[in-house]
Amino acid sequence: MISYLNGKFLKKNDIYISPDDRGFLMSDGIYEVIRSYQGHLFQSQQHIHRLNAGADALQFKQTNFEVLIEIAEELIKINNLSHKDSTVYMQITRGSVPRSHRFPSLETPLTIYVDTKEFFPKMEEIKNGVSAILVPDQRWCRCNIKSISLLANTMAHQQAIESGAQEAIFLRNGFLTEGSHTNVFLVKNNIVITPPKSNYILSGITREVLLDCCHDLHIPVEERPVVEKELFEADELMIVGTTVEVTPVIKLNHQTINKGTSGLITTKLYEHFKTTKLYHDQQ
Amino acid sequence: MISYLNGKFLKKNDIYISPDDRGFLMSDGIYEVIRSYQGHLFQSQQHIHRLNAGADALQFKQTNFEVLIEIAEELIKINNLSHKDSTVYMQITRGSVPRSHRFPSLETPLTIYVDTKEFFPKMEEIKNGVSAILVPDQRWCRCNIKSISLLANTMAHQQAIESGAQEAIFLRNGFLTEGSHTNVFLVKNNIVITPPKSNYILSGITREVLLDCCHDLHIPVEERPVVEKELFEADELMIVGTTVEVTPVIKLNHQTINKGTSGLITTKLYEHFKTTKLYHDQQ
Repeated sequence: MISYLNGKFLKKNDIYISPDDRGFLMSDGIYEVIRSYQGHLFQSQQHIHRLNAGADALQFKQTNFEVLIEIAEELIKINNLSHKDSTVYMQITRGSVPRSHRFPSLETPLTIYVDTKEFFPKMEEIKNGVSAILVPDQRWCRCNIKSISLLANTMAHQQAIESGAQEAIFLRNGFLTEGSHTNVFLVKNNIVITPPKSNYILSGITREVLLDCCHDLHIPVEERPVVEKELFEADELMIVGTTVEVTPVIKLNHQTINKGTSGLITTKLYEHFKTTKLYHDQQ
Repeated sequence: MISYLNGKFLKKNDIYISPDDRGFLMSDGIYEVIRSYQGHLFQSQQHIHRLNAGADALQFKQTNFEVLIEIAEELIKINNLSHKDSTVYMQITRGSVPRSHRFPSLETPLTIYVDTKEFFPKMEEIKNGVSAILVPDQRWCRCNIKSISLLANTMAHQQAIESGAQEAIFLRNGFLTEGSHTNVFLVKNNIVITPPKSNYILSGITREVLLDCCHDLHIPVEERPVVEKELFEADELMIVGTTVEVTPVIKLNHQTINKGTSGLITTKLYEHFKTTKLYHDQQ
């Protein structure tokens, strides 16, 4: 496979990062994962827009990464992924300099890394649902920045795996924030409910697409704080994101949600989401 | 300079990290910085003890890194740092595997990296003091783990630099936690006060040494929560840590503390700290 690092297309095995890279030493970086459906990048402008916003929040010297779309498309072509489903991973760090808490001078080049790989969606989970557990949200207060500072996320996710679940859902002071790598939606009395954008959740691209789907389907939406109890009393619960798309949660802390099957609205939303992708593919 | 990576002593320029390293992708790692005074590692057992505790907290496959002391001593020798002051930087990550939020299998080797460099203490700051600013503590809730998840720390430190100060001091819900890379002590009515150990501060090695110094000098100590107001009303304020040792803070948010000079107890503690190092050197 060919990947991209700092202006060069290289064999993945020939790509090396300096031990002085601020991504390696202090998680001083941001990233995006973009889906490519049969070679077509999905919502790429939105992903780049978020990447740019993150670079701006971290005061990176460069805050426009539009060019990465072309690089992603080139990688998909070179790696023969044009007729397959794949993911594009992009990471930008503040570059490689002797370790210091202060930012390096603006002459320091950023590290720009792009990688692609074939992606196999978990269709069985999308159809039949997954289990999740609730964990305290121990992350920092800038979860709206898609940074590589993901230690709390990976620890929470692993906790889910070890308890036999597929995702960990965070509660901060008793309020739902999001999953370890997903946003969370619930349905109650035919209303779709999800926490509002804030610095405690990532403004998910799939989250936005699904809010549009609700609009298209005339399903009422409430973006409002959600307390723990509501999750257990939900008619339907789902995790949404780039890799999970729209996946029903049928068990929460081993307690069955919605008879243990995907719900009507979840299914309807996923079907409409697929149409959105299809429309996108035909563009 | 020679550094160490995964069993090998290599020229620093020949050391490369895989882009799949979990340290680079998701800050899944821990680190230590150890001072070497004239070739003698200071408090190395305590640093390794903390590293081991971090590895345990993160469920690393290996949780005893005693061997890194020998590696550090070897690097000091090879790099002709035996008669100089230097720092040893150690970082351990969960290794290099295709990116996933779940932990890799226990067969995956950890990435173990050790680096040394000559260190020039900021004697003028230790003597005459520094300025600090207060910033909201936006970090995660496991600050007792010395992880490489340092984005919030570096952002806070940079904010201090940009406002003309040398350190950022965190307040969480109105309570003092610590500095961006230091612990904080204050003196009021001849009592030394510092926040107690918790998951919101790193249990600093220098912090412990200084508490011992207080004991030796019969200076009463209170380890207790500290509110913002107390910082401004302190008789003396100081930041303590491996690189800053004992450095007076003479301005906080541009407000003068203790007539803008180092205080009596701060000076006394630093003098005793130097004796501790000296004793250590002669061992």
